[in-house]
Amino acid sequence: MVSDLERIYAPVHGDLQRLGELLRHELATDDPFIGELVSHVLATRGKLVRPALALLSAAAAGGSDEQRLWLAGTVELIHIASLIHDDVIDAADLRRGESTVNVLWGNQIAVLLGDYLFATAFDLISRIRHPEVSPTIAQAAVRMSQAEILATKHSGEPDADERTYFAIIDGKTAALFSAAARAGALIAGAPAPVVNALTEFGRQWGLSFQITDDALDLTSTADTLGKPVGSDIDTGKVTLPAIAALRQASEPDRLRLQALLRAGAGDGALNELRALVDRWGGVRYALDVARSLATGARTALEILPASPARGSLQDLAEFVVVRAR
Amino acid sequence: MVSDLERIYAPVHGDLQRLGELLRHELATDDPFIGELVSHVLATRGKLVRPALALLSAAAAGGSDEQRLWLAGTVELIHIASLIHDDVIDAADLRRGESTVNVLWGNQIAVLLGDYLFATAFDLISRIRHPEVSPTIAQAAVRMSQAEILATKHSGEPDADERTYFAIIDGKTAALFSAAARAGALIAGAPAPVVNALTEFGRQWGLSFQITDDALDLTSTADTLGKPVGSDIDTGKVTLPAIAALRQASEPDRLRLQALLRAGAGDGALNELRALVDRWGGVRYALDVARSLATGARTALEILPASPARGSLQDLAEFVVVRAR
Repeated sequence: MVSDLERIYAPVHGDLQRLGELLRHELATDDPFIGELVSHVLATRGKLVRPALALLSAAAAGGSDEQRLWLAGTVELIHIASLIHDDVIDAADLRRGESTVNVLWGNQIAVLLGDYLFATAFDLISRIRHPEVSPTIAQAAVRMSQAEILATKHSGEPDADERTYFAIIDGKTAALFSAAARAGALIAGAPAPVVNALTEFGRQWGLSFQITDDALDLTSTADTLGKPVGSDIDTGKVTLPAIAALRQASEPDRLRLQALLRAGAGDGALNELRALVDRWGGVRYALDVARSLATGARTALEILPASPARGSLQDLAEFVVVRAR
Repeated sequence: MVSDLERIYAPVHGDLQRLGELLRHELATDDPFIGELVSHVLATRGKLVRPALALLSAAAAGGSDEQRLWLAGTVELIHIASLIHDDVIDAADLRRGESTVNVLWGNQIAVLLGDYLFATAFDLISRIRHPEVSPTIAQAAVRMSQAEILATKHSGEPDADERTYFAIIDGKTAALFSAAARAGALIAGAPAPVVNALTEFGRQWGLSFQITDDALDLTSTADTLGKPVGSDIDTGKVTLPAIAALRQASEPDRLRLQALLRAGAGDGALNELRALVDRWGGVRYALDVARSLATGARTALEILPASPARGSLQDLAEFVVVRAR
């Protein structure tokens, strides 16, 4: 899968290499303790989908402005900061196969480290001269935090409806994807139709990405994910596969599923829960929705001129629904 | 004391009134739960020293640009967000005489609410057209979070030295004061010497303000402060009065003071600690340093043309070291 992504990222390969250097440079500090925290954060590289999206959007929109790297750094830092705070909220132990910051240094440091990365992200983006770029990213961050509040408030509600679910993932994930793509197009100086097409691509792809993530939480293995399977269930998040299964299930299965969702997933419980969600077509439904959003994302790009970067964005939209993690 | 501040704030009284409306408007949301959180946050008004500093700086630098209100909103939101996260870190119960967000809604919501206010602050500041304003504020936020990490790492160390203490308060408090004053001057379109004078004023006043705060934590009463006395001691923060007393104390008193600082302040312990810090001139030393910094702050303003706003800034510098909370 990594090699799939490497192939798709090819048009911005050099930029992504430089991104690592940029982040190390921006987060460099005299203090050895902060240095240790930063090293931990930068040691494990995620899939870099947000910076890749920003860079590919800039390239597909015809831009080669150096400021695109600041944008790429910004969206990756906002993402990492939000993961670190999420792991505090969820009391998570593992992330990308490594112990989380909260486990290694405690919740206090994890809260502050997230704040530090978040502030550094805004320092980076504030240097970009295009007047709409900073507001675009800042508004995405506002929507992310609002959605996280809603998600936390609704956690542990086995009667969550699809509408609330979409409102949450739209803010939690799609807002930053959409802003990354839009800001890339803005930096490239693209005309409004191209800016809007990439904004829409980012949004639909972001929704598709999150729905697939939520399905993988039920279908994948811990080794593949780099974090425990069923962690959504454990932290009370009721996601689309479960919502769909609850809607379709027979009354006894519905009640049983609700009880399992409320209790969180112990070892045996997770298997039973997976079987019930599967029996009532929950994962299939979620993946169908993800696929249709991915198609919508691809379609949005049709007005852009053909280019390797546009091809990569279209491949990404496809890739997201067939990946294993 | 409130009437003292009202008198000093007079040149920007109208702006401060509008600030409340601005924050309510910016934080308005459709979700009733987020609305409840926002109402709690805005119900108790602090001393508003940071927005007043930004507004008075803009006025003293000759500016009347409407964007100054966005700046004022930004610095107040960053301050509130950092207080909410601080209260999580310190497991604090009371703030401004009210229960803290972490007590009312739990640590998870408090972390996310802080993120939301922080993101909204960056949304506000990103609308300001002057290219140096956003970076100035973002860099202050970076320094704040770095300093909070250092403070947390050094907490509970009764051998803290004055240098570390100053590094921490410079980042934790003075950076945002200094950035607020500088950004106010930038928005006003002031020439470089005025911008730099206000930057220096903010920094020295910020240091003076924090040192006075730390002294009040040992000398004031809970009713006056709106939070428990001795909370620095309880959370392991070793502040200037204690550092100075440790340096002057006889060997037995030094050992006793260290033991008390390590153990945190129970009822009797706090009184003994206060007596020891007092015996070795700790509070007197800290207030002398605060006074000398306040004088430095006043002096920095001498190059500005005389105006009611400049007079208010000079009065503020004076006020900070005589206040009761």
